[in-house]
Amino acid sequence: SMDGASPPASPAGLSAYVAVSQLLGLTLLATTGAWLGRYRGGVAWHSPLQFNVHPLCMVLGMVFLQGDALLVYRVFRNEAKRSTKVLHALLHGLALVIALVGIVAVFESHRTKGIPDMYSLHSWCGMAAFVLYLLQWLLGCGFFLFPGASFSLRSRYKPQHVFFGIALFALSIAACLLGITEMLLFNIRDSYSHFVPEGVLANTLGVLLVAFGLVVGYVLTRDDWKRPPLAEELALSMDFKTLTEGESPGGSS
Amino acid sequence: SMDGASPPASPAGLSAYVAVSQLLGLTLLATTGAWLGRYRGGVAWHSPLQFNVHPLCMVLGMVFLQGDALLVYRVFRNEAKRSTKVLHALLHGLALVIALVGIVAVFESHRTKGIPDMYSLHSWCGMAAFVLYLLQWLLGCGFFLFPGASFSLRSRYKPQHVFFGIALFALSIAACLLGITEMLLFNIRDSYSHFVPEGVLANTLGVLLVAFGLVVGYVLTRDDWKRPPLAEELALSMDFKTLTEGESPGGSS
Repeated sequence: SMDGASPPASPAGLSAYVAVSQLLGLTLLATTGAWLGRYRGGVAWHSPLQFNVHPLCMVLGMVFLQGDALLVYRVFRNEAKRSTKVLHALLHGLALVIALVGIVAVFESHRTKGIPDMYSLHSWCGMAAFVLYLLQWLLGCGFFLFPGASFSLRSRYKPQHVFFGIALFALSIAACLLGITEMLLFNIRDSYSHFVPEGVLANTLGVLLVAFGLVVGYVLTRDDWKRPPLAEELALSMDFKTLTEGESPGGSS
Repeated sequence: SMDGASPPASPAGLSAYVAVSQLLGLTLLATTGAWLGRYRGGVAWHSPLQFNVHPLCMVLGMVFLQGDALLVYRVFRNEAKRSTKVLHALLHGLALVIALVGIVAVFESHRTKGIPDMYSLHSWCGMAAFVLYLLQWLLGCGFFLFPGASFSLRSRYKPQHVFFGIALFALSIAACLLGITEMLLFNIRDSYSHFVPEGVLANTLGVLLVAFGLVVGYVLTRDDWKRPPLAEELALSMDFKTLTEGESPGGSS
C-alpha cells in the first residue's frame, strides 16, 4: 500500500455490510453462550459439562472465525496482498485449532457417557466439513504461502480454492444447524413443540447462523467489492497467453 | 441460435459435470423413495402415511427441480435467451407447486395427529426458504419476463437475483438435512446410534443432497462456463455509461 499510487477508497456499502456481519457474529456467540449457560449448565472441561465445549468451539471456530478469515480480502482490500494473505491463513489456522478442541470435547464426552461416535448425519456433515477444511488450509498454504508454486499454477488453483472455501463455510453452518436440532431433540424432546424458551432461543441461534452466512456470502461474491487486481494479475487477464503458454518467473501473488 | 453466427461449442467439462449432477439428482430421488417405501410404510394422501408426501415433494421440488432450473442457463447456453428464460421460470414454478403440495401434506398430517406446527428449526428454515423462493420467483417474473422493466433496471437487479437464487438453493438443502435428522430422531431414536440400516440410508441421502448442491454450485459459479453475453450486454460492459446515465430503449435481456 506504500507504492506511491493512492489506493481506491473502500466502496460505500462494503463497510456497512462488514459491520453488520460482525454484529451478527458477536450476537451468535452471545446467543450460544446464553443457551449453554442458562439452559445447559454452562461449560467446563473435566466434568459432565464437557460436551458443552463442543457447540461453543464449533460456532466460534467453524463459523465466526472461518467467516472472518474469508472476509479479510474485502476488509483489507487496499492493504499489501502478502500481509492480507498471512492474516487469512492465520485466522483459518486459529479456527482449525479451536474446532479441534471442540471435536476432542465431544469424543471425550461420548467416551465418558458410553455413547457411540459418528453415527448421525450431523457428525457425518461436521466431520466432512472439518477434514475438508483442514485439507483446503494445507493446500492453500502449499499453493499460495510457500514460494514453490508458480504464478500460473496459483492462477489455475485460485478459483477452486475460492469455490471450496465458500462451500465449506456453508457446509459448516449446515452442520451447526443439525447440531442444534440434535441437542434440542435429545434434551427437550417433549416440550420443544410447546415453544418453550430454550427451543425458541436455539432456533433463533440457527436463524442467526443462516443470517451470518448470507451476509458474509453476499460480501464475498459481490463483483465490485472484490480486491483490485495487482498489476501482474491485470496483465495476465489481458494477455491470456501468459497463462496457457508457460510459467511467469517470480510470481508473488 | 439461428442468427447466422456459429455458436461457441459447450466447454469440455461442463457436460460431464451436468451429467453427474443429473445422476446424483435421480439417485437422491431413488434414495428418498427407498427410505419411505422400505422403512416408513410408503406414501399416500388420505392416510396416516400422508406425512411421507412431505419429504418426497420437498426433495423433488426444492432440491432436484430447483437445482435443474438453475442449471438451464448453462445447459442451454447457446440457445435463444428468451426460451431459456421461460424454461427457467417454468421449472421454478413447477418446483414451487410441488413444494406447496409437500407443505400442505405436513400441515394436514400434523392436524390429524394433533402435533403443533412451526416450532422446530427445520420448519423455520424450510418455511423461510419456501416463502423467499416464492418471492424471488415473483420478482424474477416481474423484472425479467414481463416487458415492463428497463434493460438498466434488469442489469442492476440481476446480480441480486443470482446471489439469492444460489443462497436459497443452499438453504433448501440445509432444511432437508434438518428434516432428515428430525425424522430419524423421532422414529429410530434409540437404534440410530447402533448404525441400523435406516439410519445409514437416511444419512447417505443427506450426503447425496450435499453432493448435488456442490456439483450444481460448482457448475453455476465457474466463470468460463457462464452464458456468452448478448451483443447488447457486451456493449454495456464495455461502455459503463449506458448503465449509469439512462435507460436503453427496448432491452430484451
